[in-house]
Amino acid sequence: RTLRIGLIPGDGIGREVIPAGRRILEALPASLNLKFSFVDLDAGFETFQKTGSALPDKTVDTLKKECDGALFGAVSSPSTKVAGYSSPIVALRKKLDLYANVRPVKTTAGSSNGKPIDLVIVRENTEDLYVKEERTVEGPNGKVAEAIKRISERASHRISTIAGEIALRRQGIREAAPGTSSHSQPMVTITHKSNVLSQTDGLFRETARQALAAPRFSSVQVEEQIVDSMVYKLFRQPEYYDVIVAPNLYGDILSDGAAALVGSLGLVPSANVGDGFAIGEPCHGSAPDIEGQGIANPIATLRSVALMLEFLNEPDAAAKIYTAVDANLDEAKFLSPDMGGKATTQQVLDDVLKRL
Amino acid sequence: RTLRIGLIPGDGIGREVIPAGRRILEALPASLNLKFSFVDLDAGFETFQKTGSALPDKTVDTLKKECDGALFGAVSSPSTKVAGYSSPIVALRKKLDLYANVRPVKTTAGSSNGKPIDLVIVRENTEDLYVKEERTVEGPNGKVAEAIKRISERASHRISTIAGEIALRRQGIREAAPGTSSHSQPMVTITHKSNVLSQTDGLFRETARQALAAPRFSSVQVEEQIVDSMVYKLFRQPEYYDVIVAPNLYGDILSDGAAALVGSLGLVPSANVGDGFAIGEPCHGSAPDIEGQGIANPIATLRSVALMLEFLNEPDAAAKIYTAVDANLDEAKFLSPDMGGKATTQQVLDDVLKRL
Ligand SMILES: CC(C)[C@H](C(=O)O)[C@@H](O)C(=O)O
Ligand SMILES: CC(C)[C@H](C(=O)O)[C@@H](O)C(=O)O
Repeated sequence: RTLRIGLIPGDGIGREVIPAGRRILEALPASLNLKFSFVDLDAGFETFQKTGSALPDKTVDTLKKECDGALFGAVSSPSTKVAGYSSPIVALRKKLDLYANVRPVKTTAGSSNGKPIDLVIVRENTEDLYVKEERTVEGPNGKVAEAIKRISERASHRISTIAGEIALRRQGIREAAPGTSSHSQPMVTITHKSNVLSQTDGLFRETARQALAAPRFSSVQVEEQIVDSMVYKLFRQPEYYDVIVAPNLYGDILSDGAAALVGSLGLVPSANVGDGFAIGEPCHGSAPDIEGQGIANPIATLRSVALMLEFLNEPDAAAKIYTAVDANLDEAKFLSPDMGGKATTQQVLDDVLKRL
Repeated sequence: RTLRIGLIPGDGIGREVIPAGRRILEALPASLNLKFSFVDLDAGFETFQKTGSALPDKTVDTLKKECDGALFGAVSSPSTKVAGYSSPIVALRKKLDLYANVRPVKTTAGSSNGKPIDLVIVRENTEDLYVKEERTVEGPNGKVAEAIKRISERASHRISTIAGEIALRRQGIREAAPGTSSHSQPMVTITHKSNVLSQTDGLFRETARQALAAPRFSSVQVEEQIVDSMVYKLFRQPEYYDVIVAPNLYGDILSDGAAALVGSLGLVPSANVGDGFAIGEPCHGSAPDIEGQGIANPIATLRSVALMLEFLNEPDAAAKIYTAVDANLDEAKFLSPDMGGKATTQQVLDDVLKRL
């Protein structure tokens, strides 16, 4: 099987980590019978400055027509408002209907000095406040701006369903390798704020409950947590959680919070998942403070490559990458500066590649 | 001076901690020349079940006409949707125009095993998604619900101004007691998500920048942080932050997150502050799991009493309470179960009272 992968480095360190993602795909063992072809695609703030569009039509078209998956690096946010600019990744998620943003956060055997953390945040990726329907009116006491938070039964249902499926799949992997996880049963925690937003978050909550009540999820324990206490609990007992499903914005916030628990955003991958398509995307941003120094941590990207492969139905290739990355972290000889080490992007990558 | 204080225990452990709040006011040294009178007021889910209203008009009227301040305990959220019920504290904040929700989070000298944390979250308390303007339509693919997120220049300006004032006041207290804090300069961090919500959160950000550019805040360092990275940073380097100002919902989430950093929600106070009025409110909820056992931690309430007194211009009385509470925590002899101790609510209270 040959997979065609779009490469969208974007801005900042996106350009330093996406090449590492390409390299690991090229370096996968031949025994997997997987080949890759690549196409370079533009998006980001620099693209906007050059072309007037942060997400050129060509990028979207090529992804739709030619590609099986893609890797997205990062985009810079301008530090002051720039007319006409808006985030290309948010647009891409909607244009390709990549309805789930999957963000696993875990400690490796060697890295966890406390209890092992092994959770995944499944974030709805197309609606909520991210519909970006805003307006501003000039009132008697100054400006008043409003934004729409939209929650639909359809999107809530499909995100909850994929959360349930991910919980079952994780359980399958755990059963195949006993002793590697602290979870004995699949669990999904529904996050919302329905005590204030009874209609929108209430709809999310009820729909999630319904979706997860389907017979095929009968082995999945279903719990819920109000978003503010979810953040509290996430920090007090992260080891308790397995799959957390949340509307878009809460998922955004929770995944950064969870990343803090494992030491560095530079470790945390994500995949933007739709039907038959996935874009791997490291959770860190464009990191202007370290741009161009060759010291960006490539691990989040390497894990995002693996996650993309999982959703393209290549679990064996994904497992190879995860294992190599975990071995690099556990040996802790080649770590990038965000992890307290001195290794460059290239050195971390080389160390992972040699373990493939 | 005699202050009349409304007591609104609400539900659950609210009824166990609010009496402790009353006791500490009564026990303040006579040298302060402060007297208190009290009026018991109803609100909460049980009140709703009895009377059909979670926040009786009488409660609001009495607060408005007779009281200088109040203490609010907690309310239970029903576990399934109950027609007609909505949170009385959210309504109270709006009806009394208590526009700032002030939530200090700090470690005491003895309790911090890491770096000392000494920050305060200043949360806008009247708008954002808490306007609760929601509607649901039945579409071709099922239900679609929408909520309004409203951000006004006026509310953003006044919350930022009070945040700046709190930063200056904290700096004054630090200068009067050098060596008690890691901060050398007042700082306000503006939290928002204007990279997605350019109009609403953009308005919050710009207005906050303007408000804090006023000459009287010239000694205040002003920074900003996107809400997701704010959560990340809060966990990676909480000691860095002084005052964090945020729209309502982000403030809600951030303050629970910050509470996790100091070990227990049972320690974290808040004050709902308007012009000339303040309601002290512990940040923990009604805690149905420990209700009726007499083991709720009264510290969050005692500190909320102090915070209320600060905003009623009684800083000396407030300082007495803070010092007594810190001494209890530092000695760590009478700690409630949430803190790993065995003391009852009454024992913790008695220990604090004897240190007044
Ligand atoms: C850059 C920003 C628009 C984006 C988001 O909010 O989704 C980022 O925070 C993320 O989590 O991928
Ligand atoms: C109970 C709930 C409505 C409330 C809020 O969201 O404001 C609570 O979480 C708080 O922080 O005081």
